[in-house]
Amino acid sequence: MNTFGRHFRVTTFGESHGIAIGGVIDGCPSQIKLDFDFINEELVRRKTAQTDSASQRKEPDRIEWLSGLLDGVTLGTPIAFMVRNEDGRLEDYEALKDVYRPSHADFTYEQKYGIHDWRGGGRASARTTLPLVVAGAIAKQILKKKSVTISSRLVYMGDVDEARKKGDTVGGILEGRISGAPAGLGEPVFGKFSSELARAMFVIPAVKGFEIGDGFALAAMRGSEANDAFVEKDGKITTETNHSGGIQGGITNGNDVVFRVAFKPIPSISVPQQTVNRVGEECEISIKGRHDVCALPRAAVLVEAMAALVTVDFM
Amino acid sequence: MNTFGRHFRVTTFGESHGIAIGGVIDGCPSQIKLDFDFINEELVRRKTAQTDSASQRKEPDRIEWLSGLLDGVTLGTPIAFMVRNEDGRLEDYEALKDVYRPSHADFTYEQKYGIHDWRGGGRASARTTLPLVVAGAIAKQILKKKSVTISSRLVYMGDVDEARKKGDTVGGILEGRISGAPAGLGEPVFGKFSSELARAMFVIPAVKGFEIGDGFALAAMRGSEANDAFVEKDGKITTETNHSGGIQGGITNGNDVVFRVAFKPIPSISVPQQTVNRVGEECEISIKGRHDVCALPRAAVLVEAMAALVTVDFM
Amino acid sequence: MNTFGRHFRVTTFGESHGIAIGGVIDGCPSQIKLDFDFINEELVRRKTAQTDSASQRKEPDRIEWLSGLLDGVTLGTPIAFMVRNEDGRLEDYEALKDVYRPSHADFTYEQKYGIHDWRGGGRASARTTLPLVVAGAIAKQILKKKSVTISSRLVYMGDVDEARKKGDTVGGILEGRISGAPAGLGEPVFGKFSSELARAMFVIPAVKGFEIGDGFALAAMRGSEANDAFVEKDGKITTETNHSGGIQGGITNGNDVVFRVAFKPIPSISVPQQTVNRVGEECEISIKGRHDVCALPRAAVLVEAMAALVTVDFM
Amino acid sequence: MNTFGRHFRVTTFGESHGIAIGGVIDGCPSQIKLDFDFINEELVRRKTAQTDSASQRKEPDRIEWLSGLLDGVTLGTPIAFMVRNEDGRLEDYEALKDVYRPSHADFTYEQKYGIHDWRGGGRASARTTLPLVVAGAIAKQILKKKSVTISSRLVYMGDVDEARKKGDTVGGILEGRISGAPAGLGEPVFGKFSSELARAMFVIPAVKGFEIGDGFALAAMRGSEANDAFVEKDGKITTETNHSGGIQGGITNGNDVVFRVAFKPIPSISVPQQTVNRVGEECEISIKGRHDVCALPRAAVLVEAMAALVTVDFM
Repeated sequence: MNTFGRHFRVTTFGESHGIAIGGVIDGCPSQIKLDFDFINEELVRRKTAQTDSASQRKEPDRIEWLSGLLDGVTLGTPIAFMVRNEDGRLEDYEALKDVYRPSHADFTYEQKYGIHDWRGGGRASARTTLPLVVAGAIAKQILKKKSVTISSRLVYMGDVDEARKKGDTVGGILEGRISGAPAGLGEPVFGKFSSELARAMFVIPAVKGFEIGDGFALAAMRGSEANDAFVEKDGKITTETNHSGGIQGGITNGNDVVFRVAFKPIPSISVPQQTVNRVGEECEISIKGRHDVCALPRAAVLVEAMAALVTVDFM
Repeated sequence: MNTFGRHFRVTTFGESHGIAIGGVIDGCPSQIKLDFDFINEELVRRKTAQTDSASQRKEPDRIEWLSGLLDGVTLGTPIAFMVRNEDGRLEDYEALKDVYRPSHADFTYEQKYGIHDWRGGGRASARTTLPLVVAGAIAKQILKKKSVTISSRLVYMGDVDEARKKGDTVGGILEGRISGAPAGLGEPVFGKFSSELARAMFVIPAVKGFEIGDGFALAAMRGSEANDAFVEKDGKITTETNHSGGIQGGITNGNDVVFRVAFKPIPSISVPQQTVNRVGEECEISIKGRHDVCALPRAAVLVEAMAALVTVDFM
Repeated sequence: MNTFGRHFRVTTFGESHGIAIGGVIDGCPSQIKLDFDFINEELVRRKTAQTDSASQRKEPDRIEWLSGLLDGVTLGTPIAFMVRNEDGRLEDYEALKDVYRPSHADFTYEQKYGIHDWRGGGRASARTTLPLVVAGAIAKQILKKKSVTISSRLVYMGDVDEARKKGDTVGGILEGRISGAPAGLGEPVFGKFSSELARAMFVIPAVKGFEIGDGFALAAMRGSEANDAFVEKDGKITTETNHSGGIQGGITNGNDVVFRVAFKPIPSISVPQQTVNRVGEECEISIKGRHDVCALPRAAVLVEAMAALVTVDFM
Repeated sequence: MNTFGRHFRVTTFGESHGIAIGGVIDGCPSQIKLDFDFINEELVRRKTAQTDSASQRKEPDRIEWLSGLLDGVTLGTPIAFMVRNEDGRLEDYEALKDVYRPSHADFTYEQKYGIHDWRGGGRASARTTLPLVVAGAIAKQILKKKSVTISSRLVYMGDVDEARKKGDTVGGILEGRISGAPAGLGEPVFGKFSSELARAMFVIPAVKGFEIGDGFALAAMRGSEANDAFVEKDGKITTETNHSGGIQGGITNGNDVVFRVAFKPIPSISVPQQTVNRVGEECEISIKGRHDVCALPRAAVLVEAMAALVTVDFM
């Protein structure tokens, strides 16, 4: 199942070191003039690690648009796009070809398929998130026309420079916010807005926790503290507080949808680790190559993209 | 969308104070002899609040099996079942007919449909979870044949008796565990096991947080602490620690899948609250009737049911 | 897969001689006042064989409405309904329990499931069409509000009375018509209106052929004969002829959608037939019991119901 | 909805005169070594009109494989591919930009989307069938490993050379055959094999009729003629005749699945025709350019491809 969404459907394809990576967006409304600069800016956000200085600002991946557009305007037909992969430095990966890297997907993929593309993580690589950022950037443009905006901010991140020195990595927490969404989005019982948002966030690699509104903190509150009193403001009914994170009974109430996403540390560390190889022999590895210390700086645009995809699908 | 699952599909129906509540299970394998006593025991768990003494042990709701069975054995055709609703004490609800109860779904449903069944929460009522417990109990029986077991335990709950005295309510945290599931369950990118499990848990009313493995705590760890080293044990590759909660790259690794679910306090409190009515006028309400102080005792069987439905769907 | 439709979704359940037969309609708009008399009339049409005289007018099956309604008005939540099966005369079927009736589904079901409900055809029985007629009757009411009407007429039927005398059966052809549907229904490539209509008609038991517009006759025409010239009529663009049956490129053009459906003769005949039993031994059977000579009189309402379900799903 | 299939899912994209046309195959089993020569041969069949002499044998469209393969072996991940469109001779189409060609999809597409790609039919062009032939060729390879073969033959075609002289076109009938499929494929009620096959055939442009087994001819038969007697042959139960076309109760019985597909004449004729333009003014057109006289020679491979996609999806 490489398709996400029910009305605004995104199908993605591509392994990290294959020919290309891309996607097909099905169900995008016709007659929307796309802002390609914005899409490129979002791709730069995905590419830029937190420690890059301004002078190191990355070039966006070059998107080839294959279908669904006429003079930059959507036709209502599937929008296909791709980005060619550059020649990867496979020697780094070749060394680890037969070893299961701890907390990576090498082992689980091989259990599932009996084969896996060892070149840089294959389909499990963070590179597979690129088409989601593209689709999310289009979704954001559709939402903007309806005055819905998506943003995110860093809530917590481990000490990056300290970890870097030791060849180690850190995790953190991002907060996402959907503002301006109308009341009434979401379906009762199974298709709750919260349910689909949770599902979408766990699509992002390294995500291990999700909470909405006050989330886990609500577990320690009394009902009298946690309830959001309804009030009338400017002729519109809204809630005074927002412990619920904009969702009640699984359906948006018109207030901001606020949620937090917890990321584990990136598992690629140069600190030596114990593991086993394909035939079950114990061995020690130390993962070389230029890896990020923390996923969060690049992940912010992805959290927003997934939130945009969920929201546009409900609208 | 009142259907859950892709292969083992559960469609539910019913409002809390309508004629009946029930479901249709489509995709259940044929030739399984159902254990109806077990299903009834699960329904009793759903019905029994934490403060009930042993002498108050509840009778299960009486299920009418409508189709899909011949002499108690599944035919492979849809299994339909229902439970009739008893006459509710509608006077309690009638008083609140035109008032939006804080942190309830009255307002969001009405925004969505322009109409809502005010009788006891309608489709948003906790009663709609009954068919999920029935379907989950059948899923558990299928999983048991494959040596997969599902369990749960209470991790945290607020002080119930203190809250009860004040007409208030409390929240808490449940931990679920899937043991014996083979490595390789889950799909890359969108259909991750973690993604579908998160989605399933947010189907449960009052859930506001979900984490897998060490979850939010992983955000504060180093990669060298968080990584699960692979080891060989009894000729099988497994992980020494289980910070990942049995899932890597979205796919099960054969270790226990461990997750936690945070519940907000039940919003029905007799403590007086400020709110507005349908025409936007401010008013004060105090919710009467026999309501639970905490959702967790009844929710445990539901957490297990949803985990069972997700697991059986992937197998 | 016992669910039909994408937006207006019908899930059906029930074996012909089980406890009950019924369905769940998911996605029906809220606030529609149902005309139950009309639904009952449609059920009478389904029940009345062509040879019944006026005095033998059948009573409709009694529907129990289980959910989704408040005072006869739809809530937007799933509408569940059922009809209890009467005690069947199982002795007729018991005699054939171990024999594969020619051109029946006994053999194919058993190949599929390793088990089948021999009591009257189980899930393959024509009785399973009852919930479709109910759902179709609701769909017709929704369409009527939008000035779309569905009708059918008999195009060809074999000589019933001649066949009856010999214990034999006959087939025939029905024509369906969807009038008033707007231009633009249907999706390019896979979700063509014609594609979904064809699929829907083959859901009806005994259907072996389907054509749209001039259908098979178009194979013998020239382009210059078959093309439907566009003309302007009353300020609206339409086609002068309708060889295309109201569909071009898979999408409705605003003209009547006209289609024909071919039915094979009912396979239950009392004429002696050669067959084999479950262990592969040859035997001769003669099917007793009160069976119809021709499916068409009862099938007309079903052709309309399926056309209504397809149309409402696209609207 | 540009996705076909439930387990072996094909998503296609591309307009006839856009940048490229292609598809994404999701759910293809891993570890299959693809025969690219065979895929190319199938593409040549799609490209070669009936009147081409041997010396005019066409070169296949050049496929670029984008993902899902490692050294020509499937990885189990999505297989994406595309074919670039050559620069079209747009002047032919430009002349007709504002005119609705009779029995083409110009009008219906514009009614649907409010915009359409006038360049060669856009998404309604026969060129959009190219990805289906590629996907079908892969499906055939999977089926072949399981001893299932798909073939087709011409049953009827109008007089091509006579029509050509007059600038006219002809229709015809193709017969498809699925041999070696096991008994038990198809789902009761909605997911019948016949239902899905009918739906698949109407995906093919210009298809206006579909019948299975003896199809429309069954309407004129008696039950005693139409029924297929079961016999035991070589220790296996099969049917002596095959009026049912290998399907009973919607499920395959192990005999050949035989079906016929009726094609209307290609609507692009140079014979002058009456029509209207976008603003409703009457005008006369004569369609220039090198168009086929009959769709059937190219359509045969497509009938087989769609049959292969349906079959592989059920297996």
